[in-house]
This record gives sequence, C-alpha cells and structure tokens, in this order.
Amino acid sequence: MKIICNKSALLTGVNTVLKAVPARTTMPILECILIDTTSGVIKLTANDMDLGIETTVDGDVLDKGCIALEAKLFSEIVRKLPDSEVTIETDDNNKALIKCEKAKFNIAGKDGEDFVALPEIEKTHFITLSQFSLKEIIRQTIFSISDNESNRMMSGELLQIDQDQLRLVSLDGQRISIRKISLKESYDPIKAVIPGKTLNEISKILSGDMDDDVRIYFTDRHVLFEFDQTVVVSRLLEGEYFQIDKMISSDYNTKITINKKELQGCIERASLLIRESERKPIIINVTDGSMEMKIQSAMGSMNEDIDISKEGRDIMIGFNPKFILDALRVIDDEEITMYLVNPKAPFIIKNDEQSYIYLVLPISFNM
Amino acid sequence: MKIICNKSALLTGVNTVLKAVPARTTMPILECILIDTTSGVIKLTANDMDLGIETTVDGDVLDKGCIALEAKLFSEIVRKLPDSEVTIETDDNNKALIKCEKAKFNIAGKDGEDFVALPEIEKTHFITLSQFSLKEIIRQTIFSISDNESNRMMSGELLQIDQDQLRLVSLDGQRISIRKISLKESYDPIKAVIPGKTLNEISKILSGDMDDDVRIYFTDRHVLFEFDQTVVVSRLLEGEYFQIDKMISSDYNTKITINKKELQGCIERASLLIRESERKPIIINVTDGSMEMKIQSAMGSMNEDIDISKEGRDIMIGFNPKFILDALRVIDDEEITMYLVNPKAPFIIKNDEQSYIYLVLPISFNM
Repeated sequence: MKIICNKSALLTGVNTVLKAVPARTTMPILECILIDTTSGVIKLTANDMDLGIETTVDGDVLDKGCIALEAKLFSEIVRKLPDSEVTIETDDNNKALIKCEKAKFNIAGKDGEDFVALPEIEKTHFITLSQFSLKEIIRQTIFSISDNESNRMMSGELLQIDQDQLRLVSLDGQRISIRKISLKESYDPIKAVIPGKTLNEISKILSGDMDDDVRIYFTDRHVLFEFDQTVVVSRLLEGEYFQIDKMISSDYNTKITINKKELQGCIERASLLIRESERKPIIINVTDGSMEMKIQSAMGSMNEDIDISKEGRDIMIGFNPKFILDALRVIDDEEITMYLVNPKAPFIIKNDEQSYIYLVLPISFNM
Repeated sequence: MKIICNKSALLTGVNTVLKAVPARTTMPILECILIDTTSGVIKLTANDMDLGIETTVDGDVLDKGCIALEAKLFSEIVRKLPDSEVTIETDDNNKALIKCEKAKFNIAGKDGEDFVALPEIEKTHFITLSQFSLKEIIRQTIFSISDNESNRMMSGELLQIDQDQLRLVSLDGQRISIRKISLKESYDPIKAVIPGKTLNEISKILSGDMDDDVRIYFTDRHVLFEFDQTVVVSRLLEGEYFQIDKMISSDYNTKITINKKELQGCIERASLLIRESERKPIIINVTDGSMEMKIQSAMGSMNEDIDISKEGRDIMIGFNPKFILDALRVIDDEEITMYLVNPKAPFIIKNDEQSYIYLVLPISFNM
C-alpha cells in the first residue's frame, strides 16, 4: 500500500476515528486504526465492537492495500509531523514507512485483513437533522444517563420519532431529562435506545454547524450516523425502555416562575456547604412572591431569598442541588417555570411548548 | 470585626494569599486565611511556615478585629457570591456572617490571634526589577530544579546580584539553566538560594507587566517580595550553592547553528518512540552542513536531517530529548547555537551575550 495525503486532512481523519479505539481490549488488533485503500480511496476505521467509526481522507492512492497501525503511536506521529505532504508506504511484512519532509518513521503494523469489519447496515429507515440540533439535544440530556451496571437501559437514551417530532430521553432513577425538536419532514415511527457512550463520542465529532446535516439510519439492532466524510455505527441497547409518559404528570398545586441565572447562582452558593459524599438536601420555602433557599450542614448555614411569581399553594420541598443545576445549565431561557405537587412528589421544570422537560425527585428532610 | 468591600477585590486578595495555604498541615490554623483589620485596613494573610503571603483589599473597616476562616470554604464562598458589595461580620464566638445581596452565609471561624504571624524582615538590602522580567526568568529556569530530597540545594534557585547584573541559576545534576538580565541600577553583591516552591507561587501572582515593579528585600535567612498590594515572605535555603562557573567551560570543538523551531519539531517527533520509563538517548550525527537525528526503540525507528551551519569537528552524541526540549521551549531566538566538546562532555546552548546558558549532560550509547 502507498498513499500520499495532506498532514492536516490525515490528522482530522485520525482524530475522528480515534474516538472508537477501545482503551482496553483483549483483541490487540482493535487497538489499531485500519487504513484501507482497496476501494481506491483512503478509508480509516476504528472499532470497539459496540461502536465503529469510519472516515475518508482526501489524498492519492498510489498502491492499493490495507494495514492496521497501533492507534496511539500512529496518531501521535501524525500530530507531530510538519504541516506538509505525508507518504505512508507498507511492505509485505506489514512494516510501515511514514515520510513527511525530511522526517522518516519506521513502525511495525498488523495485517489489515485481520481487522474486524463494521457491521453491514441496511439503509432503509432514516431521518435527517442538522448537526447543530443533534449535538445540542445530546448535550441537553446526556447528563442524566446512569452508569448503573445493574440497569443497562439507563446507560442509554431513548430516541423516538413521531411524525416530524424527535424526542431524546434519559433517566437515572432520580430524574428524567427530555428534549423535543421538530424535523423538516415527517417519518414513520421509530423507537431506539442508543448507548450513552455512542452519543457522547458522536457529539465530539459533529461539527455542530446549522448548515451541515446528519442522516441517521435505523435497523432493529444498529444505528448509523452519516455526516461529512464520516460514518458512525453503533449497537442499540435491546429491550423495552421505561414508560416515560406515565411518569410525567401535568397536575400541579404550585407553579413558580424564576429568573434562571439568579436561581442557578443561589443553588451554586448553597452547594458549597455540602460535601459530595453527603446526600443533604437544599430546602426551598415557596411563599407568595418570594422563595427562601436554606441549607444547614456541618460546615455552616446559608439562606437566601429569591423573587418569584407564584400561582397556587405554598410549599416547602428539599432536593439534590446537583440535579437542578445540571438542568439549569442546559436551559437557555432567561426565566424558567417549575411545577410542584407536594414535598414527596417529583417536580418538573418545563417550558410551555414542552421542548424541554426536566423531572427531579425530591429528598425528604427533617425540620 | 465588620468590613465592607467589593466582591471582585476580595476575590483577587483571597486568590493571591491562597497560594500560601498548605495542602496538608498538622496545624489546623494554617489551613485558614487570616482577615486582620486591627491596623484599619483589610489585610489577608496565609502562611505555610516556609512561605507567607499578605495582601490588602480595598474596602471599609466598620469594626476592627481579626478572624481566621477556613481557606477552601471561604474562597469558594467568595468566588460564588454575586458581583456586589460583601459584608463580613464576626461575633465573640468567632462565628462569621458573610452577606452579599440577599445571600447570607454563617460559618465558624477561628481566633485570629492564634494565627502564626509572618516573620519580621529588616528592609535594608533590596533590588528593583519589573514584574515582567522576574516572571520571565523564573519561567525560563524553574524547570531544571530537582525535587531530589537528598540534596535540598537543588530544590532551589540561586539568585545572584553582581553590580547591575541579576543571574538566576537552577540545576538538577544532569543540566544547568542560567538566565542573566541587566537591572536599571547597581547594587551590592547578593547571593541567595530561594526555594523553587516560592518562585513557582510568586510567578503565578505576578501580573507580569513591564510597567509594574517588584522590590525584593534580602536578609540572611529570608527574602521578601513587595509588589502591588502584596508582600510575599519566604525562607531561604541555607548553605553554599554549587560552584556553577567552574562547570561551564567556554572551550569547544564543534559549534553549530540551527533553526530552533525545526530542531524542536524534530526532537518532539523522535521523543514519540521513547517510553517515559526508558532512558533511551536520541542520537545526533553532526557533519558539514547537516545534522542527522536518529532514534531506534522497541516501538520503531525514526531519522531526520536538519540543515545546520557548523564550525569545527564532526561529532556524534546522544542526549535525553526532554532536557533539550525544556530549554528550547523557553528560548525566543529563531536560531540557536550549540557548543560541543566530545560525546562524553556536557554541551551548551547559549547566545553571544550569554543572557541564557543551558548546559546538558550527554548519554552514552552503543552503535
């Protein structure tokens, strides 16, 4: 195999597929990046068996073939090469010669034929949305997946299509995060649970540009994302996701509207008095026109009043400050609205269009 | 005690003294920041017994007194307060009430009288230089101090004044770094070995501005830095520093001039093939007009030619790439000159004015 390409194009490609190289594996070949030019284009692939990424690099194929190069060393070499043309040439013993200006590297590779190919995906069902939208809704929900090993479903997110509505849902047993966006077209219904790791990695690769689209293909067992010069294939989590809609009630006894930034600052300050190991609640006391936030711990005490507008009953409720902060940090609205039922029932932060819904369980407290 | 000051001024002061709060200590009072207003100004102090920092904060003292507040919690509270006026009020039980807009914190403090005062320094011998210069020469030499516990002297830097010349020297047994600058005035000779930790912390606090001066006072056992609203006091390391000038020879058999960026890139690439645990040398082979760099390791091999201009004998020599890289990264010149004697003798990178001298021991190698 012999290829010539530009260093920066090669580096972009290498950095893209690097996200699918497993940190630890029992199959050494998976620690490699596959360079495959048998089809006449320079294709890079990495695969950790759950997640696979493939991307093409602009350049010339002088001699077709394929080789697997140890990902860490290869990526570091490419990163440190001068910004110029790179030649990669391999011999029959899978030795690779990497040349760039006057620098010459000789490293040992592995037979590209031994690399584990990505699964073939039948491209029938798909949706299209902008890279910006996909990246945003991942960021706005990914924080409430759980790495709880005993419940695999919680480690993924539900992606649901209903006509032109796309909904992304995550939950960890203490809270639920839901984002909904409108697509340009209507599609057949789809329900798929995508591993959180896949969503995390893909949101790092997406340009996040409004004008760049990403096409998502679904099969029963896989999802495939296609954008720019890149394809990401991931297994889906198999099984039924949680009955979200039964958990979200629209009943409430108290509705309050608050300045988001003020609330966030206040909760951040209160959090200072809680050690991470403690499960100590912050308590809010909602009365007409004002909300008092209180915390008392071994480190000291803190209280602060915030102006609110309120409908319905007074209420006093305790909660884990981290859960609310996670939600507030990804809401762009200046004012947010909270719906509360009673001190034992989950409360909800949502907007009128319900393009976001964040549900949080309260923590009981002793006065 | 009762004070009112601006949040941002208080935060600047807290962040400044925080550098002298010890990470671990057997004296809990030292984990505090002292707020002392007995002199009518707001003075913050931290002291780890080797290094002490004192700074003043603009604001009003409504009630004189002093209190010691746990540094970590206090600094985090100040950081998270709204950008507004802060009131700190203490009672007879050393409880502190911190108020800012509607936020109120109650935390327990310690008696300020128990805090360990900074040593009194007689202010007779001093020098003046710009904060920029001091910050620069620390950065350009600090990397070659040693944390070798068996030789305390190597953990500090020699600061030497000879008329209007200031010299800062560090060494770790494998290399020596020297920077020399001219001061605006001449002073009596001074020789002091300042702990590396002190120099590290002070370079973080210095504004680094050309127009801001720092005044440095010396006594037999202490050094005191005075700048802006801040005073830093540090113990000196006691004993004789190494005889540096005897180690630096001006004889050489080979003198080469190289583009610094090219050399740096080339060494960085070669370093990729060395694991940190190995003490494998990079080998350069210097001939007329060209230098070949070579490395061979279990990971592969690499070689690269660099154009040079050369006077004197051909030479082949091995060295630890990290040592050269550390020096190259703090040299601003486009071209650098290396002076070599033989493969067993130290080589030197310096400029004609000798405002910088970097000496590195070679590593022997087998062909």
